[in-house]
Amino acid sequence: MVKKLSVRISGQGLHDVTREVAEAVRESGVREGLCTVFLQHTSASLTIQENADPSARRDLESWLNRLVPERDPLYTHTQEGPDDMPSHIKAALTDVSLSIPIVDGELGLGTWQGLYVWEHRRREGPRSLLVHITE
Amino acid sequence: MVKKLSVRISGQGLHDVTREVAEAVRESGVREGLCTVFLQHTSASLTIQENADPSARRDLESWLNRLVPERDPLYTHTQEGPDDMPSHIKAALTDVSLSIPIVDGELGLGTWQGLYVWEHRRREGPRSLLVHITE
Amino acid sequence: MVKKLSVRISGQGLHDVTREVAEAVRESGVREGLCTVFLQHTSASLTIQENADPSARRDLESWLNRLVPERDPLYTHTQEGPDDMPSHIKAALTDVSLSIPIVDGELGLGTWQGLYVWEHRRREGPRSLLVHITE
Repeated sequence: MVKKLSVRISGQGLHDVTREVAEAVRESGVREGLCTVFLQHTSASLTIQENADPSARRDLESWLNRLVPERDPLYTHTQEGPDDMPSHIKAALTDVSLSIPIVDGELGLGTWQGLYVWEHRRREGPRSLLVHITE
Repeated sequence: MVKKLSVRISGQGLHDVTREVAEAVRESGVREGLCTVFLQHTSASLTIQENADPSARRDLESWLNRLVPERDPLYTHTQEGPDDMPSHIKAALTDVSLSIPIVDGELGLGTWQGLYVWEHRRREGPRSLLVHITE
Repeated sequence: MVKKLSVRISGQGLHDVTREVAEAVRESGVREGLCTVFLQHTSASLTIQENADPSARRDLESWLNRLVPERDPLYTHTQEGPDDMPSHIKAALTDVSLSIPIVDGELGLGTWQGLYVWEHRRREGPRSLLVHITE
C-alpha cells in the first residue's frame, strides 16, 4: 500500500509529521510490518530527531545553517536563489527515505523520536511524501 | 517479522552488530528478501563502514568529533550534558534506518562492509534496535 | 525479488542510475510497492539529487570535497591512498541504502529527482548494487 501525503509547510525548519504518518499506519490495519516514508523533493529532507525539547531542533538547524551558508563563493548554481544550493547540500547530508518498523499496529519509534520534514528553503506551500506500508 | 534487539554499548564509538543482525536473518528462514534495521534513539545512530582496518573507523570518529565539537557556543540545548547536543547533530548526519537485501539466506553486505551502532554519548548501557525482515 | 546490478563507473562524481533501477522495477511487474537500492561498498555511496541542472551536482561535489579534503593530518588510515579515507567519511555522510515507493508500476520519484551512485575514489570500474522489489 502506498499513500500520498501532502504536508503544508510554513517556512524553513523542522515540521513534525509523526501524527500524519502514524495515522496512515493505523488506517492500514498492519500490526507488524514496515513503514517507509519518502520525500519527493531535493531541497527539503527527512529526519528523526528528539521530540521533547525544541531547543535541540533549533540548535540542529543553526548548526547546519552555519556549516552550509548561503552565498558561498564556491556555488555556481545560483539562479534559483541564494537558499537553493545550500538546500541541495543539506538534503544530501540528511535523509530522503526512512523506514520504521511497525510493532503492535503502531510506528516503532523510540520514546523521544519524532519524524520531521526539514524544509531547507525559505518558502511556504506543500511538500509531497509517499508512505509505503507492508507486513 | 519484527525482532527487538538490545545491544550492550560500552562507550563512545562504533560497535559492530553485524553478527546479531545476521543471526536474526538466519532465524527468519527468509532466503531472498529485505532486512531493515532501525535504531530507537536520537543520540546514537547506524552506519555501514569498512570492517577490515580499524584505523578507518577511528579516523571517521575523530573527523566527526572535530566537525561537531562539544561546548560549541552555538548550542543552547546544554542541560543534558556537553555530549548531548553534538550527539543529536551526529545522528542527523548519519543513519537511523538501514535496509539490506537478503541473498541466499544471508545479509547481502559487500566483502568489506560491517554494520555498526555508532554511540555518540559517553555512556554505557543498552541501545534498542528493531529488525524487520520480509521476503 | 533481489536483482544484482553492476554499474560501470568512470571516475569521481555522481553517476545517474535512475534508468537501470527503473527498468528493474518495470521488469518486476510490481504496480504498487517498494524498491530498495543498496550499494555494496564503503568508499562510494548513493544519493538522490536534482536531475535538471548539472551545476547543482557539481557544486554539491565541490562542497563535499572542501569539507572532506585529502591529506588531512588527522588521517592515520593512509596506506590505501590519499582518496581512501575521505571516501569512507563521505560515504558515512551520505547514503548506502535508499527506499523508493513504486506507484503505477514506476519509481515514485519527484519530477526533479534522479538516483545517483556517488563515486568518491579516483577509479574506474564496476560498483555493485542490490535492488530489492516487493509489493
